[in-house]
Amino acid sequence: MDRLEQQLRFVLELDRLKSVYRRTYLIDGTRNENSAEHSWHLALLAMTLAEHANEPLDVGKVIRMVLIHDIVEIDAGDTYIYGDQENKAEREHQAADRLFGLLPPDQAAQFRSLWEEFEQAATPEARFANALDRFMPQLHNYHTQGRSWKEHGITAERVLTRNIDISYGSETLWEWTQTLIRQADDEGMFPEEK
Amino acid sequence: MDRLEQQLRFVLELDRLKSVYRRTYLIDGTRNENSAEHSWHLALLAMTLAEHANEPLDVGKVIRMVLIHDIVEIDAGDTYIYGDQENKAEREHQAADRLFGLLPPDQAAQFRSLWEEFEQAATPEARFANALDRFMPQLHNYHTQGRSWKEHGITAERVLTRNIDISYGSETLWEWTQTLIRQADDEGMFPEEK
Repeated sequence: MDRLEQQLRFVLELDRLKSVYRRTYLIDGTRNENSAEHSWHLALLAMTLAEHANEPLDVGKVIRMVLIHDIVEIDAGDTYIYGDQENKAEREHQAADRLFGLLPPDQAAQFRSLWEEFEQAATPEARFANALDRFMPQLHNYHTQGRSWKEHGITAERVLTRNIDISYGSETLWEWTQTLIRQADDEGMFPEEK
Repeated sequence: MDRLEQQLRFVLELDRLKSVYRRTYLIDGTRNENSAEHSWHLALLAMTLAEHANEPLDVGKVIRMVLIHDIVEIDAGDTYIYGDQENKAEREHQAADRLFGLLPPDQAAQFRSLWEEFEQAATPEARFANALDRFMPQLHNYHTQGRSWKEHGITAERVLTRNIDISYGSETLWEWTQTLIRQADDEGMFPEEK
């Protein structure tokens, strides 16, 4: 197959990420957010908030990383951060094989390596990209009066424990998150402790 | 106001782009596409198709440009490419004033200048970003059997005339588009000439 045709098959397949819905709601509460628009939003966060990263980093790489970080969900679906993580890695690796495998081999390797870097969270760019991915849902939840937290029985303590990774990418955003969660708690946005 | 707070107000406001719907349909035909997920898709096109640009360019800049190119639609709405373009520039400039104006002044200037560059289409990056923006809807239309073309009475000739800008960014994508449109015409995807 022609190189451009291979690239366009990948591009067309990507459209399906617009139909993968997350647990979070749009800030106006009208519907759940999908993973494609969520990825766009994170890229804008990277452009806007990069100065708050703990370490010096290549912002362009963070942007590319968040743009592709959820592509595997086209096959593997969205795995809720507070839900069962069983088989997640296996399902997502199979998805990465198939999806990035649509590209010409040189690009398949590039995209795959960028995605693996995000997953391993062992570089400054990957730590910050993961921090943004954990940070944004807190804003969505706060601005929808904790709707998704309530629906899934997630307590303030659980949010703080599960999202500590924000601090690895940005102490500033982590401090801000802690304040937000305490405020959400004071405002009754969390379900009763079980 | 604190710098981070200003940045987060901007980030929150961006969420509204997810509720601005375009004339194009998702490739599975289930609903119209919104401008946030469309912007994400274009950024992935930039990452995948940059080698087909007419001129050497900074791909990172193309990515940032397509990520922000539609933000003004939050206030100005989506203007259909085959529709009335009256007051479009004025409405979008006012929107840019308000929306980028939410950011700290240094970032407001940066984002504004990137958006103006896209609009003026006078640099290699802006020409390629505009080409991608014109190219992708052809794929959506073709893969939904010309649904949006038919709904709005758009002929093959009109598509070819109105999207010549693709050639300024990429002769390769333009050739490919011309073939696609001819094929779509042969397959009866366009309405009868009026």
